[in-house]
Amino acid sequence: MPDTLERLRAILAEVTDLNRATAVLAWDQETYMPPGGVQNRAEQFSTLSEVAHRRFTSDEVGRLLDEAEAANAKLDFDSDEASLIRVTRRDYDQARKLPSELVAEIAHASSTARPHWQKARHESNFGLFAPYLEKNVELNRRVADALGFEKRPYDALLNRTEPGLTTDELEAIFDELKTAIVPLVADISRRAEAVDDSVLRHGFDPDQQLSYALETVTKLGYDLERGRQDISTHPFSIAFGPGDVRITTRVNRDFFNECLFGSIHEAGHGMYFQGIGRNLDRTNLWDGASPGVHESQSRLWENLVGRSLPFWNHFFSSLQRTFPEPLKGVDAEAFYRAVNKSYPSYIRVEADEVTYNLHVLLRFELENDMLEGRLKVRDLPEAWNETFKSYFGLDVPNDREGVLQDIHWSFVGFAEFPGYTLGNIIGAQLMEKIRSEMTDLDHQIERGEFGQLLGWLQENVYRHGRKFTPNELLERATGRPLTPKPWIAYVRKKYGALYGLRLDKD
Amino acid sequence: MPDTLERLRAILAEVTDLNRATAVLAWDQETYMPPGGVQNRAEQFSTLSEVAHRRFTSDEVGRLLDEAEAANAKLDFDSDEASLIRVTRRDYDQARKLPSELVAEIAHASSTARPHWQKARHESNFGLFAPYLEKNVELNRRVADALGFEKRPYDALLNRTEPGLTTDELEAIFDELKTAIVPLVADISRRAEAVDDSVLRHGFDPDQQLSYALETVTKLGYDLERGRQDISTHPFSIAFGPGDVRITTRVNRDFFNECLFGSIHEAGHGMYFQGIGRNLDRTNLWDGASPGVHESQSRLWENLVGRSLPFWNHFFSSLQRTFPEPLKGVDAEAFYRAVNKSYPSYIRVEADEVTYNLHVLLRFELENDMLEGRLKVRDLPEAWNETFKSYFGLDVPNDREGVLQDIHWSFVGFAEFPGYTLGNIIGAQLMEKIRSEMTDLDHQIERGEFGQLLGWLQENVYRHGRKFTPNELLERATGRPLTPKPWIAYVRKKYGALYGLRLDKD
Repeated sequence: MPDTLERLRAILAEVTDLNRATAVLAWDQETYMPPGGVQNRAEQFSTLSEVAHRRFTSDEVGRLLDEAEAANAKLDFDSDEASLIRVTRRDYDQARKLPSELVAEIAHASSTARPHWQKARHESNFGLFAPYLEKNVELNRRVADALGFEKRPYDALLNRTEPGLTTDELEAIFDELKTAIVPLVADISRRAEAVDDSVLRHGFDPDQQLSYALETVTKLGYDLERGRQDISTHPFSIAFGPGDVRITTRVNRDFFNECLFGSIHEAGHGMYFQGIGRNLDRTNLWDGASPGVHESQSRLWENLVGRSLPFWNHFFSSLQRTFPEPLKGVDAEAFYRAVNKSYPSYIRVEADEVTYNLHVLLRFELENDMLEGRLKVRDLPEAWNETFKSYFGLDVPNDREGVLQDIHWSFVGFAEFPGYTLGNIIGAQLMEKIRSEMTDLDHQIERGEFGQLLGWLQENVYRHGRKFTPNELLERATGRPLTPKPWIAYVRKKYGALYGLRLDKD
Repeated sequence: MPDTLERLRAILAEVTDLNRATAVLAWDQETYMPPGGVQNRAEQFSTLSEVAHRRFTSDEVGRLLDEAEAANAKLDFDSDEASLIRVTRRDYDQARKLPSELVAEIAHASSTARPHWQKARHESNFGLFAPYLEKNVELNRRVADALGFEKRPYDALLNRTEPGLTTDELEAIFDELKTAIVPLVADISRRAEAVDDSVLRHGFDPDQQLSYALETVTKLGYDLERGRQDISTHPFSIAFGPGDVRITTRVNRDFFNECLFGSIHEAGHGMYFQGIGRNLDRTNLWDGASPGVHESQSRLWENLVGRSLPFWNHFFSSLQRTFPEPLKGVDAEAFYRAVNKSYPSYIRVEADEVTYNLHVLLRFELENDMLEGRLKVRDLPEAWNETFKSYFGLDVPNDREGVLQDIHWSFVGFAEFPGYTLGNIIGAQLMEKIRSEMTDLDHQIERGEFGQLLGWLQENVYRHGRKFTPNELLERATGRPLTPKPWIAYVRKKYGALYGLRLDKD
């Protein structure tokens, strides 16, 4: 029944275009919109998402899916058509399960809570935010109930973002990580002086940083014919289709890492978007496989490539020509060491490669405890500070630098944090496989050649879009399901060497 | 029946938001979109306009209008509610009269014709474009037939853009203009050397031009809290709501007029948008009264204010401080004379204040002749060149600088040119009234005070949005319907003085 699929595709194309228009409006809001535009923009967002939601959740889409499933039952699982029907069905059922009153209540609660969270953070006064967080916990729980779950409410939320992954599995992975990182962080802390990053912290001309960063990500493979870079307070990447994938960055004269590594991070997302097959365009399959898989690409390019010694063996000489003054007397290896300095910090978004996952673990555990009713909102700051101390060995000085730091809990979306850590893990798992197939990868990077690496990722990850769940994708790309072992091995080896640690074998 | 109006308003708000999203996408395409984005953007435009059109032309809107008309028949004509129902009815009936096949055919013909027009213009070969123009003439005629008209097909097209104005009335106005301008242009040509504009043509730093222009339009009253200025190939103004009204400009180191007067022109449109009553927001009333009335505000601020001697008596000293080198030895009056130099040119968009209307007349006459079947497309270049000679006294050297110069005939929208001339006329008619009420206007301008002028325009024009047709608006604002006499008197007086002409009395 080609007609059924054709009609389904026409509706999905319409919904995609509406969502892409929303994305253009969001990009504009973060880059160029004048302050007076806030109210009109909120109206436009609300209308576009309502129109898209109404269209996608219409009975017509349900009928077309029923017909398409009946007519295409024997298609190969991996085919575009079978994947389109399978993934659209999953999206459709999830969207239909949420009553529109609940969706409206969530939108209202989120916009209501935000200014209170801002005020609470500003005044470092958790009590001002607590009633709104209580409401948000309740709404998250109602979302979980509406979506349904077999064992744990967090499963329902996780299944929306990382389909196929259960809370039990995630806990097991996180436990394995914790066992490895907590002692590593402590070891590094004891030898903090072994790595010096003072060279990063003075006098990098902002305009030159911006153009150096843009030149660098272009060399990695981010296509400026189908992209551009702008400035925003919080860097992000965003796609309006295969032909238009943008990144933003920020720049700090007195901290080199922000602009260059931020740009490589976002370009990693951008290259993923740019590599999704055009055959999937304007359907529910045209996107990253999951937030976790998406983050694997930003982290892979930022850390596994951009923070590697071969990378700086290639780039350092041009960097030094660009910034002769601040880099006088520095060499590639010293610079490599500097950009990899690790130290425990209170703030997640400033965290380094080793400690980052602990920040995520902390949040996952606490939001899961709240959702399952084990932790009351009023006890959250104390729980935060205790867990933080046990992970980082630090006393949290105040709620602003503690439990109030992230915007995420001010809107209803729980289960967003795990994606950051899944990204690290998936990136390392893919890289382990890549190194087994491309044994001279380090030499390629040292020569500034990234085409073969990008080609592998395009072939094994990017082009598939959302056809596969994270685990389906990992099994096809690496031969095994999600495992934190490659990432743990990577950080132990890298940071063991950087800090001169004597680590036990795994 | 407040419920009826409320439901109608909710739908109009949704349609408005969709159209505003389209406007954001259009702004982005002209300013920042990477080249690869063209195809995705075209898909997004097509989807958004289709969704908005479908919603606005739904039977539900028709029913709500019927109910609202019945329930509100006794409302004051000038009230927001009566105006909303009246104007929405007009828009609705016009939109419903066009069969969707015709709308689709027009969209297809426009996108097909454009590259052929571009090639024809590039090669200065009208024959390449002729078949597409023939199709467009036919489609314009079918639009006119579908919309309906009592006397002349052009009436139907004109009624969409300038409601209430007939082709006969327009011809009478244009004849009056022609009678006045053609001899004036000839007189000026004979004394061309009386005004020297060489000072405008060298060495104005582009960045300083941009910031001077932005500073100037802010002083006139364009609100940057609710606006911004960017660069684009063709300057334009665009509104995404009362809180976000943007302008673009371009800049030429070796021709001063482009950036500053282009910016004032677009800021004139921008101030109009910014002044529309918020009580009309998200309805069909939130826009300019017509393209002609809109253009009256860009031309009023650009020419009647920005190209006046009092304006330069105020601004010239700061301009000279900004550009000391190119303006060495120049005074305010010499600069005023330079920016007002008039000379016949082949290209409409480069035309000065006096000759501009002749370019419009020429196009109006020819497109009307084609629509009424008196002129065949194959005879168009000859007709163009003959008429041009009779108006400007110049032989058109080739079709690229003649009949192929404008993009307008490559899409189906005839009847767009008259708005440019109506703008000049309406601007002068409003200004005559303003001067009768604000006798010290020139002194205010000389002191750099524009608040009272802007306030008058907000009160009498801007805040009303689309509540009134151009003539209804003019009658309320000036006490009489549209007349070209104030504009004719203005140019005769101004250019008579500039060129030392001895003109007969009117």
